[in-house]
Amino acid sequence: MRMLGIDPGTAICGWGIIDKVRHEPLAHDYGAVLTSSTLSAPERLKHLYEGLIAVIDRYQPEYGAVEKLFFGQNTKTALAVGQARGVVLLALSQRNIPIVEISPAEVKQTVAGYGRADKHQVQMMVTRLLHLEAVPKPDDVADALAIAMTGLEWVKFREVLR
Amino acid sequence: MRMLGIDPGTAICGWGIIDKVRHEPLAHDYGAVLTSSTLSAPERLKHLYEGLIAVIDRYQPEYGAVEKLFFGQNTKTALAVGQARGVVLLALSQRNIPIVEISPAEVKQTVAGYGRADKHQVQMMVTRLLHLEAVPKPDDVADALAIAMTGLEWVKFREVLR
Repeated sequence: MRMLGIDPGTAICGWGIIDKVRHEPLAHDYGAVLTSSTLSAPERLKHLYEGLIAVIDRYQPEYGAVEKLFFGQNTKTALAVGQARGVVLLALSQRNIPIVEISPAEVKQTVAGYGRADKHQVQMMVTRLLHLEAVPKPDDVADALAIAMTGLEWVKFREVLR
Repeated sequence: MRMLGIDPGTAICGWGIIDKVRHEPLAHDYGAVLTSSTLSAPERLKHLYEGLIAVIDRYQPEYGAVEKLFFGQNTKTALAVGQARGVVLLALSQRNIPIVEISPAEVKQTVAGYGRADKHQVQMMVTRLLHLEAVPKPDDVADALAIAMTGLEWVKFREVLR
């Protein structure tokens, strides 16, 4: 089974492709779609869309995994991340990729074995479980790999969005 | 000059096409892209995208107008509207339509002549200024027409997003 995990963002959108081979997660490839701050917001969203479609078409994942997002009081951040997340969901939907939504606590529980693990612990466990030589950078890439690993564990237990 | 005003939303996305003819705004056509609540969020965003692209391709506007959004404390609403707004900006950018961003106060000032006008006053003025027989329904359509009218007034004074 092949899972595409995505950590949405306009400046940096992390992605990770993980295959499950004999019950073991294997990082097939990973990276980030970066857009320049010199571009307008609509132009950045267009580049993000094109980058994601290229990843989907290249690796043909069976599922996509995206975090459910919760924000404190920062509605400005919520709006900006929402715009990127809308483009992510659109790209997956247009390619008929079913989507698993998972919570940040599920990511921590699944990858680090502890629902309140911190960001650093999650990244160390991603690196170890996937037998990578170093923590993938930027952080958004490691986060996307953690989301993909969690998606692989949860996809059989929950209804996917189509 | 032809302006497409858009009021982003996932359930109801209002749109209005206004032409400026001899300094007068003329409503060319207007409506809403509606998506069923029985669909998943990604599927709704896909329908929204397809509906918007159909409007753009049919009416070939020279500019798009979208409100800058401000939210109080409701980050859940900000995220949901952000997702729809991301798809709106993407569709306009993919069709190379330059975008005018305007504030809610500018809409009220331009349409009702008063920056603190209420929603009802704005809708009445839209109906009168465009010589419509009744207030367009749902509200999102009247709002989109108000946004388009405001975009027509502001486009010459400000930098547009491309």
